[in-house]
Amino acid sequence: MNPKPMGPIPPEYADQHGVLTIAGHLAGDWAAAGTPVFVYDAAIVAARIARFRAAMPAVDLHYAIKANPHPDLLAAIAPLVDGLDIASAGELHRALTVKPATAISFAGPGKRDTELEAAIAAGVTLNLESEAEATRAIAIADRLDRTPRLAVRVNPDIELRGSGMKMGGRPSPFGIDAVRVPALVRRLIAAGVDWRGFHIYAGSQALDADAVAETQAATVALAARLADEAGALPPLVNLGGGFGVPYFSGDRPLDIETIGSRLADALATRPTVLASSRFAIELGRWLVAEAGVYLARVVDRKESGGEIFIVLDGGLNHQLAASGNFGTVVRRNYPLAVADRMGEPVVETVNVVGPLCTPLDRLGDRVALPHIEPGDVIAIFLAGAYGATASPAAFLGHPPAIERVAV
Amino acid sequence: MNPKPMGPIPPEYADQHGVLTIAGHLAGDWAAAGTPVFVYDAAIVAARIARFRAAMPAVDLHYAIKANPHPDLLAAIAPLVDGLDIASAGELHRALTVKPATAISFAGPGKRDTELEAAIAAGVTLNLESEAEATRAIAIADRLDRTPRLAVRVNPDIELRGSGMKMGGRPSPFGIDAVRVPALVRRLIAAGVDWRGFHIYAGSQALDADAVAETQAATVALAARLADEAGALPPLVNLGGGFGVPYFSGDRPLDIETIGSRLADALATRPTVLASSRFAIELGRWLVAEAGVYLARVVDRKESGGEIFIVLDGGLNHQLAASGNFGTVVRRNYPLAVADRMGEPVVETVNVVGPLCTPLDRLGDRVALPHIEPGDVIAIFLAGAYGATASPAAFLGHPPAIERVAV
Repeated sequence: MNPKPMGPIPPEYADQHGVLTIAGHLAGDWAAAGTPVFVYDAAIVAARIARFRAAMPAVDLHYAIKANPHPDLLAAIAPLVDGLDIASAGELHRALTVKPATAISFAGPGKRDTELEAAIAAGVTLNLESEAEATRAIAIADRLDRTPRLAVRVNPDIELRGSGMKMGGRPSPFGIDAVRVPALVRRLIAAGVDWRGFHIYAGSQALDADAVAETQAATVALAARLADEAGALPPLVNLGGGFGVPYFSGDRPLDIETIGSRLADALATRPTVLASSRFAIELGRWLVAEAGVYLARVVDRKESGGEIFIVLDGGLNHQLAASGNFGTVVRRNYPLAVADRMGEPVVETVNVVGPLCTPLDRLGDRVALPHIEPGDVIAIFLAGAYGATASPAAFLGHPPAIERVAV
Repeated sequence: MNPKPMGPIPPEYADQHGVLTIAGHLAGDWAAAGTPVFVYDAAIVAARIARFRAAMPAVDLHYAIKANPHPDLLAAIAPLVDGLDIASAGELHRALTVKPATAISFAGPGKRDTELEAAIAAGVTLNLESEAEATRAIAIADRLDRTPRLAVRVNPDIELRGSGMKMGGRPSPFGIDAVRVPALVRRLIAAGVDWRGFHIYAGSQALDADAVAETQAATVALAARLADEAGALPPLVNLGGGFGVPYFSGDRPLDIETIGSRLADALATRPTVLASSRFAIELGRWLVAEAGVYLARVVDRKESGGEIFIVLDGGLNHQLAASGNFGTVVRRNYPLAVADRMGEPVVETVNVVGPLCTPLDRLGDRVALPHIEPGDVIAIFLAGAYGATASPAAFLGHPPAIERVAV
C-alpha cells in the first residue's frame, strides 16, 4: 500500500522529537483530562499577530471571530487586534464582552431585523449586504432614534487568483455589486447615517503572495473609484483577508512580508480621495489555524483487506474539514502525527478513521506513520480554525470535544 | 440563466396546491413560532413502516437512530419497530428510554471501554467491529459478572451495486473481514458469551431494487456460509439497510415490494443452518427522510451580476447535506418550494442561499420557482434524515433550528 502525502506540520511542531509539546505541556498531559481535545495556543496566535504588525505596520488588523470563537481565545486575541469582525448576533454578544462596539463590524448576507436592531443599539458597524438591508437598517435606527454606523460591503469586480474560495468577480450573495455602490453611499449619507466606508472581500485561503498583493492593489483602486463616484471620503477601507495556511502536501506558507511591502507601495501612491482613510485587513484562519491541535486517542487497531485501520475516539463530528467533507472536492490529508513519537521514522501505512458509522469519517487516508497501538494519542494539526464550531458535533450522539486554551 | 433541476418533492407534498400543509397544519403556522424549523411528521414515518411491513412481513424492522434521534420522533417510532440500532453511548441512553435493552444493538468502529461497559451493563447487543473489541468486551463482561450479548459485524465480500455509499467489498473500518469471522464466532461461543448472530451492512442510499435484492440474497448466502464454518446457528441475521430515497433530479423511488418478494424467495430457500434464524433490516434514512421538511424564512432578495439571490435565515448550519457539502462530489439541488405558492407556475430562476458568510452556504443553485419576496417561507424537503444532527449547528454563532414533531 503506497502512502499518500500529508500536509506540512506547522513550524512550531514540525521539528519536535519525542513527545509532542503544545504550549509547554506534553500532549499526554493535555489528553489526560479526556479526549478528544482541541488545544489552542494563544502564544502562537500572538506570534502571528506580531509578524503581521511587522509586515504591515500601517494597516489595522481585524480578527474574524467565525474562525474560532472560543471565549478564552477571543479574550486573548482582542487586546492584540484593532477590530473584531462578526457574522451573527451570537458572535455580536461574544465580541461585546471583549471589545468596544466601535471596534466591531458585522457582515453577513442574511441579517435578520433582530440582528440589525441589536447591532445598531450596541453601536456596532454594519457591513451592508444589499440595498434592501440598508433600508431596513435605516428604518430600525430611526425607530431606535440612533445614528447607525453603516459601511458598504462591495462585491468587487475582482477575483482573488488562486484562492481556495472565490468571493468576488462573479454574481454573489455577498455585498453589493460595485457598479451600484456609489449610489448607495450617496443615499446613506443623505439619510444622515454615520457612513464608515467599504468592506471589500475577494476570496479566502490564498497562498500566493503575488495574487494577494495584486488583489489588494486592485481593491485600493476600486475603493478610490467608488469613493470618487460617491463623492465621499471613506473613513475605513476593509481590504478583506484571504491569507491562507498550508493544509496539504505541496502547499507553501504565504509570504506576508512581500504582501506588506507591496501594500505599503499601493497605499503610498493611493489617490487623494483615500488620503484620510484607514485600511484594515480581516484575518481568521491565518491567525488561528496553526495554533490549534486536535488530540484524539486510539480506540482500536484493526486489519481489513490488507490495510490497517486506526480508529480514534473522535472524527468528523469534531473536525469535519480534516475529513475532506467541507468545501473540498478532492480529499487530501491534513498533517497528523503520533503524539509521543514525533520525529520517529515511519514504519507503516495506515488509515486513520473516526468512530462514526460512516465511510466519510476518515482523517488520514493511507498515511505513513510510526507504529500505533490502542491508547496512543494522535495529533491532527491545523485544527485552530473552522474546527469545533464548523463540525456536526451532535452527529451520532458522541460527546462534544473538549476545548482548552493555553494563554 | 438556465435553471438547474431539483429533486422530486416527496409524494405527500408533491401534489399540493396553494399553501403547503404539513401534518394537517399550514406551513405558515409551523413557521409562526420561529424559523428556521424542522417539522417531522410521524404519520409519514408510520406509513413507511406499514409499507415495509406489507412488503416484508417475515422480516424484523430496526430503526437506525442516527438518521434522526429527536426524542419525540423516537418515541413515536419505537413501538412500531422491532429493534433500535445505535452508534454511541449517547444514543444508548436515548434508546433505553423507549425500548428494552434486548431490542437494541450497538454498532460503531470506535467503541470506548466506557461505551462497552454501559452497553453490557444494560444488556444491549454489541455488534463487534474487531477481534480486539471482542477481547475488550469479554474482559469488561467478566469484570461486571455479566454474560454479554455479542453479535459479529461482518465486512462482507459483497458490494451493494449502485449504492450512494459503499460499505462492503473492500478494506473497511466497519466489521470484521468475512474470512476471519468463523474463528471469532467459535471463540465467542467458547468464551460463554450469548452470541446473537451477524450484522452485515453492504452500503446505503441505493435506489435500484435489483441491486438491493441481489445484495440481500448474497448476504443470506454469506451468513449461511459463515454459520456453517463456525458450526453455530445465528439467532439473528441483520441484513443491513441501504434503502435510498430520491434526493435529486432523475432519482426514482425504491421499489421495496420487489425487494420484499425477492427476499422472501431467498429466505424460503435458505440453507438449513439459518432455518431457525430471524432476519432484520435496519433502516434510517428511508423511514424518516421524507417525513421532514425544513422551513426557513426569506430575509433578503438581492440581485448580483444578473442573478437573483434569495437569502434565508438558515442554511448549511442546519441542513449541511442540502448544501452539497457532506459526502457528495457534485452539488445537486434538493427539492424545495415556496411554502405558500405550492403548484404555482415558476416565473424566475434564483439562487437560494443561507445566512452564513461562506459561498458553501447555497441550498438551491439556479432553481426555477414562483416569485419570492422577503418574509416568504421556503420549504426544503427530505430534511427528516441526517439534517439537524448532521450539520454544524454552532457555525458562525447562529441559533440552532427549532425541531417540531407532529405525532
